[in-house]
Amino acid sequence: MSILHAGGLLKQLRRIRAPRRPWPDSRGLCSVPDRLLARIERVCHRISTNASILERHGDDESYHPALPPDVVAFAHSTEEVQAIVRLCAETRTPLIPFGTGTSLEGHIQAVRGGVCLDLSEMNQVLQLHPDDMDCRVQAGVTRVALNAELRATGLSFPFDPGADASLGGMVATGASGTNSVKYGTMRGNTLGLTAVLADGSVVSTGGRARKSSAGYDLTSLLVGSEGTLAVITEAQLRLHPIPAAVSAATCTFPSLAQAGAAVAALLQCGVPLSRAELLDGTTVAAFNAYAPDVADLDVAPTLFLEFEGVSEEAVRALASVSQECCSDHAGAGFQWATSESERRRLWAARHATYYAALALRPGSRGIVTDAVVPLSSLAQVMVDTANDVRSSGVIGPIFGHAGDGNFHCILLVRKDDPPEYVAMLQGINDRLIERTLAVGGSCTGEHGIGIGKKKWLAREFGDGAVSMMRTIKQALDPLGILNPGKVVDA
Amino acid sequence: MSILHAGGLLKQLRRIRAPRRPWPDSRGLCSVPDRLLARIERVCHRISTNASILERHGDDESYHPALPPDVVAFAHSTEEVQAIVRLCAETRTPLIPFGTGTSLEGHIQAVRGGVCLDLSEMNQVLQLHPDDMDCRVQAGVTRVALNAELRATGLSFPFDPGADASLGGMVATGASGTNSVKYGTMRGNTLGLTAVLADGSVVSTGGRARKSSAGYDLTSLLVGSEGTLAVITEAQLRLHPIPAAVSAATCTFPSLAQAGAAVAALLQCGVPLSRAELLDGTTVAAFNAYAPDVADLDVAPTLFLEFEGVSEEAVRALASVSQECCSDHAGAGFQWATSESERRRLWAARHATYYAALALRPGSRGIVTDAVVPLSSLAQVMVDTANDVRSSGVIGPIFGHAGDGNFHCILLVRKDDPPEYVAMLQGINDRLIERTLAVGGSCTGEHGIGIGKKKWLAREFGDGAVSMMRTIKQALDPLGILNPGKVVDA
Repeated sequence: MSILHAGGLLKQLRRIRAPRRPWPDSRGLCSVPDRLLARIERVCHRISTNASILERHGDDESYHPALPPDVVAFAHSTEEVQAIVRLCAETRTPLIPFGTGTSLEGHIQAVRGGVCLDLSEMNQVLQLHPDDMDCRVQAGVTRVALNAELRATGLSFPFDPGADASLGGMVATGASGTNSVKYGTMRGNTLGLTAVLADGSVVSTGGRARKSSAGYDLTSLLVGSEGTLAVITEAQLRLHPIPAAVSAATCTFPSLAQAGAAVAALLQCGVPLSRAELLDGTTVAAFNAYAPDVADLDVAPTLFLEFEGVSEEAVRALASVSQECCSDHAGAGFQWATSESERRRLWAARHATYYAALALRPGSRGIVTDAVVPLSSLAQVMVDTANDVRSSGVIGPIFGHAGDGNFHCILLVRKDDPPEYVAMLQGINDRLIERTLAVGGSCTGEHGIGIGKKKWLAREFGDGAVSMMRTIKQALDPLGILNPGKVVDA
Repeated sequence: MSILHAGGLLKQLRRIRAPRRPWPDSRGLCSVPDRLLARIERVCHRISTNASILERHGDDESYHPALPPDVVAFAHSTEEVQAIVRLCAETRTPLIPFGTGTSLEGHIQAVRGGVCLDLSEMNQVLQLHPDDMDCRVQAGVTRVALNAELRATGLSFPFDPGADASLGGMVATGASGTNSVKYGTMRGNTLGLTAVLADGSVVSTGGRARKSSAGYDLTSLLVGSEGTLAVITEAQLRLHPIPAAVSAATCTFPSLAQAGAAVAALLQCGVPLSRAELLDGTTVAAFNAYAPDVADLDVAPTLFLEFEGVSEEAVRALASVSQECCSDHAGAGFQWATSESERRRLWAARHATYYAALALRPGSRGIVTDAVVPLSSLAQVMVDTANDVRSSGVIGPIFGHAGDGNFHCILLVRKDDPPEYVAMLQGINDRLIERTLAVGGSCTGEHGIGIGKKKWLAREFGDGAVSMMRTIKQALDPLGILNPGKVVDA
């Protein structure tokens, strides 16, 4: 549980003022004078300028340096958000929406200071409709908290980006995770949003219909907009039935290429995989070292597969076709895990991958790449990246959501690393994205642009699309107060 | 094959000038003077002002009166589209993109005259990547033509809105159809677009990645924008494997409510239905009368179900769970169709529903409602609508894509019907949408807003969202030249 949920401590910390940080003022945005602080406090009641709170709110889980805001306001309602946005608009003060701070591209860094709007106390599940398999949540509800509420319904919110992120943050980032090959991403599972625009107006972008062709798709426009177009305060989300039968398996391959080909073949056969994770040998070794009590895997390119079905019989049918398909691509050592405890152990291991990778160089944070390529290019791009990592003389485990063509390479960086070392790691990332764009891929599948990938946006889409994004940003946020410096520069 | 594809005839028709229709000029948009016609012809070469061509291009398949454009230009490339858009921008001339003219809400009606930009001759499949299950098409390729190209690949483009619509039109309308319960809609299956903006700039909104969090989702913004934000010239689309095994079934129920509950239960059990169509008794009777050689169904609320799987065994497992589930909700008379010929017969019958409905009142067109409600409300809204239809003394078969909560009521209208009669039918539609919005639904699931549902947009979303749509429209099309009068008024 994060410090922000420890109500008692938080209460003591509120109103404790830290020394004000100087604020770059290049765009004519004013700093936060005491008079504005007092006005924010009047509409919101819970604000803090305590140094450690500011520090925590200007630092995500990435390698990007922390840039704390000038003040943190803890909103409790859409009306409070609206009032704060209006004050920021009036005074041209930057405003940065904040969920749990688990993003990976500097999304919450206060590059121009301003007000961090913490939504973590807007944590109510507002509606739950089990018969319709949808729910309405406030932005600060986390995915684990939502699933706890769903326990008695037979339904789940299956999207799992790793961290226990807030649902508002997951919407704003366009998050997904290991099972998007079956369930899609936040984009396809967000039915509607309540959001506050830069002028303080409140919009409702969709209702409970499972599909709609009514007007412009404002929901999809806000999904992945990273707090730069609006502050999301509520989300209507699709839920999914917990499958009656599940089976997981691991299978090793002589090469990444063969493992990648096996996944492509499974999808071409129409096997409804619910997960297809591909780990390279380095990752498997990191894994065994990190959790020797649970993991004892052969050090080789390995597929983690999961199948879901309406019955044991349905799952067995999928499993049998899949085993055959993997064998055709030289897959061997098929190990099945059908009991829940076995599957939990397997996936706990897979989910520990990130921390296993960090443990390879203690004290590190990761530059976590998340490129997406067409399926047929996945193995080659992974192999080329692994060669680049090896020839650069660093450790960089590679694993990914093979069913989407989305993979991560974790490049380990420490605060005290010399600039040349960091630049060398950035070079690996840059070449990886070059390779990705050369085959028609995307520089980010689920982490977003933030400040870390801005330079790649025009390379991926061309100037026309980035200019169109800028036109939309300027139309919806003409003063540039919403999370300035992220995604596109106004 | 439509007249537009009959190249020989078309050539003769080109340049034949029809008498110019007077043009309402309330927004200061000029009419098309000869000088502009000559300039359009210079950049595009294929234009027509022949009366029958104009008439056909101002009339979709809906009940809305035809409003022909002043000239039709047949574009062959993105560059030609760009040149025509630039001319229209320079002269503030309305421009209406046209695919096959099969839309249902007056999308192509030239409410302010201007240039109809016919994209049907941009009909090339530009790229086909079977291994990655995606393709790139020009906007004028129709779904049947694409599937013909895919024949040897084991893949299909499964989306079927009924008509053989152009893919650009399907993107622009946010179309779907009977199998969106499994495959989603055009929104989730359009990876990227090439489009020409109102200022003549060309944007590329996405590549070949199966998911992306890179910047604002311009693709989703253009999907369903009905030609009002940009002219779509190319689309990158997802393809899907043709399933190894398919099984279809019909099952009758004592009431619509029980049939609706059965569908909800199937989805809650996680049965991966590929179609779940619900027909009321009137529709089944229309059906039997329209196609007595193929249809001999019990006149009762009927579910058409379809299951797809990797093997006969997998499909059998689904079928067995489903039959049990339907029986629990008083479903009876389960009839299976596993051979392809039987299934074709069954679905040909289902697809004939619209024409079967029209045949109930010869010479009619349909006011085709397409509301979407949460699953648990579907049966009640269908029953209330059926009662309203009955008490109004008209015939209005009701059927729908029950897995999405999307249903159609076909209200039959003739050109010579008195205004009071048409108003009475509109009243049924209005009350249907009122009922839909009261339960959090959407006024349109797949037909779009066009001119026919504009009044419902603010009722569905509230003024805030419509004002946000207007802001986007004004930012991207400040002169209001792109398909004016549709979706939102600038």
